[in-house]
Amino acid sequence: MIEQVCVIGVGLIGGSLALALKSAGFCHHIVGGGRNQQRLEKAQQLGIIDSYSTSLADAVKDADIVFVAVPMGTMRTVFEQIAEHLKPGAVVTDGGSAKQAVIADAKSGLGKHFSNFVAGHPIAGTEKSGCEAAFAELYQQRRIIITPTNETDASAIDAVTSMWQAAGAEVDSMSADLHDEVLAGTSHLPHLLAYSLVNCLFESDKAGSYFKFAAGGFRDFTRIASSDPVMWRDICLTNKSALLDSLSRYQIELDQLKSVLEDNDGDQLLSYFQSAKKSRDKFHY
Amino acid sequence: MIEQVCVIGVGLIGGSLALALKSAGFCHHIVGGGRNQQRLEKAQQLGIIDSYSTSLADAVKDADIVFVAVPMGTMRTVFEQIAEHLKPGAVVTDGGSAKQAVIADAKSGLGKHFSNFVAGHPIAGTEKSGCEAAFAELYQQRRIIITPTNETDASAIDAVTSMWQAAGAEVDSMSADLHDEVLAGTSHLPHLLAYSLVNCLFESDKAGSYFKFAAGGFRDFTRIASSDPVMWRDICLTNKSALLDSLSRYQIELDQLKSVLEDNDGDQLLSYFQSAKKSRDKFHY
Repeated sequence: MIEQVCVIGVGLIGGSLALALKSAGFCHHIVGGGRNQQRLEKAQQLGIIDSYSTSLADAVKDADIVFVAVPMGTMRTVFEQIAEHLKPGAVVTDGGSAKQAVIADAKSGLGKHFSNFVAGHPIAGTEKSGCEAAFAELYQQRRIIITPTNETDASAIDAVTSMWQAAGAEVDSMSADLHDEVLAGTSHLPHLLAYSLVNCLFESDKAGSYFKFAAGGFRDFTRIASSDPVMWRDICLTNKSALLDSLSRYQIELDQLKSVLEDNDGDQLLSYFQSAKKSRDKFHY
Repeated sequence: MIEQVCVIGVGLIGGSLALALKSAGFCHHIVGGGRNQQRLEKAQQLGIIDSYSTSLADAVKDADIVFVAVPMGTMRTVFEQIAEHLKPGAVVTDGGSAKQAVIADAKSGLGKHFSNFVAGHPIAGTEKSGCEAAFAELYQQRRIIITPTNETDASAIDAVTSMWQAAGAEVDSMSADLHDEVLAGTSHLPHLLAYSLVNCLFESDKAGSYFKFAAGGFRDFTRIASSDPVMWRDICLTNKSALLDSLSRYQIELDQLKSVLEDNDGDQLLSYFQSAKKSRDKFHY
């Protein structure tokens, strides 16, 4: 059994991993690190972490594995603050949603510890945030993407893989740029679309009626617009290039669909919808 | 108690109304009408309707209320086929998603019975279709929009209102053009966005990876892309004008958001997301 895991940023993602590792008996002790003492106190009260420190140096000093689950814009600062205080051989991983950016941050921030850094991304979450939203089952049968570089130590990859497997997840490995492209399409772009649809409707003088008569389809479609704005600002900025590519392709797609509608082309519209339905119906999860 | 209700098109919408009215004891007998004998037989076996006829003339001849729940493109034909066979005073209503178009169809198709026609739209449904997907609780605490014209008989409005209330729904009245604008924004546009996102991703050479690593946000966001393509082709074509307006406004919104991202403007992005979250969080249903 691992002795100590440190979770920096005990919110939904970090807190749920802590709960899952506790429930799996993966380690003896989980220490939380972060800036906000009140939230760390709360996480301890909720039994998510065993102890905490608002000094990241203190938080990581005895940890075998450090999981950094802070907004993307804060990653580099965290790496810089912990680099000098890590135990020899300590493995560092993260839960950020854009991997090329985190790898660059880790390379510059962690210095000689970079070979023990394994960039990772749990494909899991809800629109909620904060440690109160954390639950031990979040990662059960979910996928974790890790994106090691050719400098990454094999034993660090093994340690991170074992950790996520203990939390109930399946671990896949791919390049950081493929990760960023795939996630831009299936996650980051949908968030932009949902945020912009909500704003588009609610800036209108018909906002009251939109609000009153929106149904289940709208509720599900826009659920992700309730996601944490700071986290999503950071994701958009750190995965900007892949996201803009994905957005541009989508805008072309939307223009084409608009032309079909303008042309009153029922056959084309039908086969367009049939093809989308066929693809979408393959998701049975 | 009403003697007989006729449901033309016994799918999710028509079948669920039939089940709700049965369960409420609203009428003695429910007759189903449609073109497909096999499906009507199935609906009778499932206890959704008491009898059926593939002749719409037969199906409506003893009905006090006729509910037309067929795809928008079929409405006019149905109205034309039943007009001469309605009982004197029989009330006709529908469940179509675009009201200006249905009103035009009813005016031309129902002739002298048009004053007893009440255009209606239950704001309810799922991405499933067919009578097997019908359930009696679909309309419980959901809103029904009716859009009477100044030619509509008050007693017809009362009859349709009572029917939906018996099914557990709340009835609101508004103009057909406001209905079409609101629904374009909260329902028809989101469907276009979901269909086009799915096609945009699945036409790519990365389709396999998109598929494999899509998470819960994507699943909910694109759930409506599983909706019935024929129904949605018809909705888009019949509410084309309001939908194109709504789509154009959305494209401008998306262009603006894209510029903010291109400019790397984190503050603007944050306040954009915060404002959307604030609006979206008002939905607690």
